[in-house]
Amino acid sequence: MRHFITTADWSKDELQSVLQVADRLKQDRNQCLLDGKTVALLFLNPSLRTRASFQIGAHQLGAQAVVLEPGNGAWGIEFDQGTVMDGTAEEHISEVAAVLSRYCDMICMRAFPMFQDWSYDRTDPWITALVRHASVPVINMETIVHPCQELALMQTLREKLGEPAGRNLTVTWTWHPKPLNTAVANSVIMIATKFGMNVRLLIPNSDYLLDESFMAAARNNAADADGSFEVTHDIDAGYAGADVVYAKSWGPITFYGDADGASNLSEKYKHFIVDEDKMSKSNNALFSHCLPLRRNIKATDGVMDSEFCVAIDEAENRLHVQKAMMLHLLGVNASEVRS
Amino acid sequence: MRHFITTADWSKDELQSVLQVADRLKQDRNQCLLDGKTVALLFLNPSLRTRASFQIGAHQLGAQAVVLEPGNGAWGIEFDQGTVMDGTAEEHISEVAAVLSRYCDMICMRAFPMFQDWSYDRTDPWITALVRHASVPVINMETIVHPCQELALMQTLREKLGEPAGRNLTVTWTWHPKPLNTAVANSVIMIATKFGMNVRLLIPNSDYLLDESFMAAARNNAADADGSFEVTHDIDAGYAGADVVYAKSWGPITFYGDADGASNLSEKYKHFIVDEDKMSKSNNALFSHCLPLRRNIKATDGVMDSEFCVAIDEAENRLHVQKAMMLHLLGVNASEVRS
Amino acid sequence: MRHFITTADWSKDELQSVLQVADRLKQDRNQCLLDGKTVALLFLNPSLRTRASFQIGAHQLGAQAVVLEPGNGAWGIEFDQGTVMDGTAEEHISEVAAVLSRYCDMICMRAFPMFQDWSYDRTDPWITALVRHASVPVINMETIVHPCQELALMQTLREKLGEPAGRNLTVTWTWHPKPLNTAVANSVIMIATKFGMNVRLLIPNSDYLLDESFMAAARNNAADADGSFEVTHDIDAGYAGADVVYAKSWGPITFYGDADGASNLSEKYKHFIVDEDKMSKSNNALFSHCLPLRRNIKATDGVMDSEFCVAIDEAENRLHVQKAMMLHLLGVNASEVRS
Repeated sequence: MRHFITTADWSKDELQSVLQVADRLKQDRNQCLLDGKTVALLFLNPSLRTRASFQIGAHQLGAQAVVLEPGNGAWGIEFDQGTVMDGTAEEHISEVAAVLSRYCDMICMRAFPMFQDWSYDRTDPWITALVRHASVPVINMETIVHPCQELALMQTLREKLGEPAGRNLTVTWTWHPKPLNTAVANSVIMIATKFGMNVRLLIPNSDYLLDESFMAAARNNAADADGSFEVTHDIDAGYAGADVVYAKSWGPITFYGDADGASNLSEKYKHFIVDEDKMSKSNNALFSHCLPLRRNIKATDGVMDSEFCVAIDEAENRLHVQKAMMLHLLGVNASEVRS
Repeated sequence: MRHFITTADWSKDELQSVLQVADRLKQDRNQCLLDGKTVALLFLNPSLRTRASFQIGAHQLGAQAVVLEPGNGAWGIEFDQGTVMDGTAEEHISEVAAVLSRYCDMICMRAFPMFQDWSYDRTDPWITALVRHASVPVINMETIVHPCQELALMQTLREKLGEPAGRNLTVTWTWHPKPLNTAVANSVIMIATKFGMNVRLLIPNSDYLLDESFMAAARNNAADADGSFEVTHDIDAGYAGADVVYAKSWGPITFYGDADGASNLSEKYKHFIVDEDKMSKSNNALFSHCLPLRRNIKATDGVMDSEFCVAIDEAENRLHVQKAMMLHLLGVNASEVRS
Repeated sequence: MRHFITTADWSKDELQSVLQVADRLKQDRNQCLLDGKTVALLFLNPSLRTRASFQIGAHQLGAQAVVLEPGNGAWGIEFDQGTVMDGTAEEHISEVAAVLSRYCDMICMRAFPMFQDWSYDRTDPWITALVRHASVPVINMETIVHPCQELALMQTLREKLGEPAGRNLTVTWTWHPKPLNTAVANSVIMIATKFGMNVRLLIPNSDYLLDESFMAAARNNAADADGSFEVTHDIDAGYAGADVVYAKSWGPITFYGDADGASNLSEKYKHFIVDEDKMSKSNNALFSHCLPLRRNIKATDGVMDSEFCVAIDEAENRLHVQKAMMLHLLGVNASEVRS
């Protein structure tokens, strides 16, 4: 049994097969290949696209999705093992996982980091615990990585650019009033290097470096796929020659657990906002972002409303790639999918 | 492409065609005319009837409805254009509308006024922004008007009274501890006049006048359809000769943004409660209300439990008229609907 | 028209027929016997298993379930009759029940006690009011009893033990930081005695006695079915000879409405936790609990992860018994269910 927790566990060939099925599902949305199946969607954090696209995607495949929000309509969950549960959580992930495995054919979960202790959060303890106790396939709907977003990005780049290998992608940090999750940044550098792109990480300074595990994965991917991975603090250098600019905000890991310190530091770098002037320094780059995006904070209206913004296409592709991944994990052969 | 934002955009003939389809759907609820379609339901405010009837209605037509609650499980939304989004909203309606238009075949939204500034709220900025950015049909599930409720009222009156033209309908203001939305009152005076009824608006004093745009629409409708529209502050005169009494509470627009002032003023008029004594002064009138209704505040138990109360029938008809409107907006011809 | 509010209204034979259908549905989950039907699920309190299993169960039978959460996305509800509704509730159960009866074929509700006044709560006023005003069958999803859990327990015991009559079942109180609902304890003693088991209620002292109505029902059931019902405060005596140990925490009714007093008293009895040492004193007993369960508070990890823990099986059986009960209440004959 396979899970989809991080693309680090999947080869480029495997992911490409999934993307090819996604292309077919994009042409023909309603295919009852999962008739009678049920998918549980566990949301520990807010969602619009993920929630809508998984529900709709499951339905279009003939399956049923059930949304559960622990702490909001469902009981709060404890994820650590061996805990004396005298806090606020009313039940343990071991029971949640075991029970939902009896009711459902797949469990998907979103569980953002807690922003207290990175040495703990970096182990992705929530989805790890779910996988340990589940007896059905699990899909990560964003924890410290966001693999479904990775697939959606790659489907979009293949549609817009053709073969992505050898093209230049810049991940630029941008300001946001709150210190956010690094998940999408971690994910973008891993998937783009896996597909042979030359990836630049543009950050204000070394406080904004991503966790070394993801940076190392990007370097290794680049070495394997004849791409590259580098870090720059220079905005001009970051945009120069870029074929794709991907924006994301995150809190500096050096200030993890110190929201005020993180916000004070990040405020100095509001000028990292993606605007038309910066984009003009690129190689007529596409612009994207995982959404939600605060306009005129992370990117200007001009950028968001431009022809080169593909964020909406990427959001649409969430639907198709997730359906393809559900089929793959539930053992539906690609040949059964109409094209 | 057509939207259903306000009945002011629709002719009486068009609405009557929709009601005729609703009549057929009431006889035969399950008709898979929207197989494979998806409808997004965006709720920025609470709902019981609207939420249930749209979900059930979509399902009975073979479609899937997805409920999203921005600010409660989904990200908060900014509706104004050009804003620097440094407040609490994490994303802009332009992205919400564009993404949902890729996932879904229709978007329905409930967005109550903010009760700060009527000069702003009266422009219905939320649904207007949604329509601007959506590329699929939009249905208003209550903003500053409540057009689905209007259709349900008219289906109910046609069932109970036959032809409504020439009959007398009184909209009576009633007390409620909080200053509420004027939407249903605005809607009732517009639809009843459009269908040729003689409409009286019974309010304690001129603080409770509805916005002039809706009053003017009612007067114009009345002129076109040989009905009438008048305002009275006299309870006896308001009930005399009424064939239908429709109750609704709302905050005085003159105190808009001043909840305490509004509540203090309204408290003086608790005696506007609809009771059996007042109803006995009417022409054996039907009584209705959009629900939810606080019993023994807006209307007495005696009125609510009486044979002349048709509020439950009107609530049921929400299901049928909304299904008919979904079919209409998605291009299903009336002839395809079984009778 | 029949409702499923408490098993006190149902004979053992009737319940056994439902369990036999549940057994068949467990073998063959997807059977479209309720095509085109709709079930409303009203949750006034959190839920994971109930919410998931009713939604999934309805879908597997071809029906649609609609989740409504009064006070969280839907309007708050008043349940008392004759109230002047000037509090927080925006609508009355009489309208909720009547409207949902027009939209749906069945209404299920969870409404926990208010923990203020047991003389009020013990009348189960919420579900009673719903039944009074509904014109479709009602299922209790937990109020002061939890009849669906009862059926799931009995299906589990029949699977694991064969005929339950004559076997020994101990309901042991356990500690929890908050004074919880007595519903499951009330339910277990009623159903186990109805099926002829010898039931022991193990509680720290007489503060933890259950309401006399449920104790009397258990005694009467035992007399009718040749079982027994007794109370003990002695842990060793409680476990000795037990074939099944069922754990549950609840607040002492003598401190009802006094959460601090209840918690202070209960803290003295933390040692009632179910652990492997206590279980070793039983007759190789099965262990179960309704879930959610706080690990290492109510029961140890060792017990929960043991081979004799059947709580997950019982949770799974919620799905099957509820589907069987929905079929029964909606008039689907047992012979129509594939085995």
